[in-house]
Amino acid sequence: MHRRFFLVAIPVLLTFASCHMVEKDLSKRTWVDLSYAFSPETIYWPNAAGFEFKVDSKGMNENGYWYEANSFAAAEHGGTHLDAPVHFAEGAWTSDAIPIEKLVGPAVVVDISEKASGNRDYQMRVVDLQDWEARHGKIPVGAIILVRTGFGRFWPDREGYLGSAELGQAATLKLHFPGVHPSAATWLVEERDIDAIGIDTASIDHGASRLFHSHRVLYKANISGFENLANLDQLPAKGATVIALPMKIKDGSGGPLRIVAFY
Amino acid sequence: MHRRFFLVAIPVLLTFASCHMVEKDLSKRTWVDLSYAFSPETIYWPNAAGFEFKVDSKGMNENGYWYEANSFAAAEHGGTHLDAPVHFAEGAWTSDAIPIEKLVGPAVVVDISEKASGNRDYQMRVVDLQDWEARHGKIPVGAIILVRTGFGRFWPDREGYLGSAELGQAATLKLHFPGVHPSAATWLVEERDIDAIGIDTASIDHGASRLFHSHRVLYKANISGFENLANLDQLPAKGATVIALPMKIKDGSGGPLRIVAFY
Repeated sequence: MHRRFFLVAIPVLLTFASCHMVEKDLSKRTWVDLSYAFSPETIYWPNAAGFEFKVDSKGMNENGYWYEANSFAAAEHGGTHLDAPVHFAEGAWTSDAIPIEKLVGPAVVVDISEKASGNRDYQMRVVDLQDWEARHGKIPVGAIILVRTGFGRFWPDREGYLGSAELGQAATLKLHFPGVHPSAATWLVEERDIDAIGIDTASIDHGASRLFHSHRVLYKANISGFENLANLDQLPAKGATVIALPMKIKDGSGGPLRIVAFY
Repeated sequence: MHRRFFLVAIPVLLTFASCHMVEKDLSKRTWVDLSYAFSPETIYWPNAAGFEFKVDSKGMNENGYWYEANSFAAAEHGGTHLDAPVHFAEGAWTSDAIPIEKLVGPAVVVDISEKASGNRDYQMRVVDLQDWEARHGKIPVGAIILVRTGFGRFWPDREGYLGSAELGQAATLKLHFPGVHPSAATWLVEERDIDAIGIDTASIDHGASRLFHSHRVLYKANISGFENLANLDQLPAKGATVIALPMKIKDGSGGPLRIVAFY
């Protein structure tokens, strides 16, 4: 009896101990930073002001120690950023109101880069999501969909990334980059239960969109958007966990987002 | 042999499966948001500009859908924010250069609120850290120290929180709130191996500091600082995991920080 007890107990205890170590040692996992740094070259929408950075102090001061401090100004929707659902949906969550649980979840990386490389206006369709499911199983509840178009390879070249390097209101009509088709957005809202969706382009809707239907469908359902994501090619199609922590702007419609993943 | 195999294998597999669920379901853990929202009432240093928020669009637009977007401006060092090590140490990490592994780790919550309630100028001493260790064991490698002074109860009242509600350069000499004593900062650098330190006041050094010795000692060792933390009273002394994701500002000395913890 004793022998049988140890035969069971020791492997269980060892397994349990090792898995607790996994939990505690989050810092030992493989981390991928899905965020671009903010700088004056950060890409914003053609009609938005860019990121301003001002050095207020930098150097040894009169008290004999190093001191460095800066200030900055930005529109909410540029660089790697959050679209809070209220961006396109009256009364939906603002940046400060999204529960943390909705910003953390299993990554579902949908790769449409091959289709988008031959067609700058490609929009992810339901079939792309179904293809993912055929290979990896049903999209889990609370998933964070990450749409990989491959356009990250152009960053920070505006011409390649947006389809036009021009600035100003008229330039917003010259954008060509891939996005999410409204039919896929609708399918995700109606057929699955996801928390957020991100993409490695400047917008959830493709560049040629005029009415932003995918934004409107998703955000009305309080699904958050993450735009201008970096390094999606470094994630497995399945198995990573996303942690997306936006700057907590009271009543914000979006804002700078630090988004990382581990596996 | 078969029976013995299952006797071992089944409990191991069940234990392994259950601990993997824990990992996958990070969104089911208890999360605490340690960040204040940014708004015009956010507390900055008396000589720094506050947070500016501008509504650029809000309402139904001419295309018949809701659209809301804002812009903002801020100094790096106000509200819940990161001090990148370069803030006080030439050549140390900037905001964009801190490895993610150094921003994630086990929380060590050191409660000095009782001492600080009777003395606004109290500084955490080595003995406070040793008291924590006597109760909870040695501070683990990669720990994130969270100093709980109890001053979060004053937020966002400047008088209570900082010791003076005045603005301007002269007011920086009228600050009184608790912090970390340089001897404790030195002990942490020399005797332990921590990744970061946070506090629920406006500064790692106490308000009456003139030379910011604790900042200088810690940041020279590439230990990051987190200031103006919220909700530290909602964390256990040991057992929580901190995830601190700052806005990724290229060459930044700090910036808005979204910091959360789960247990």
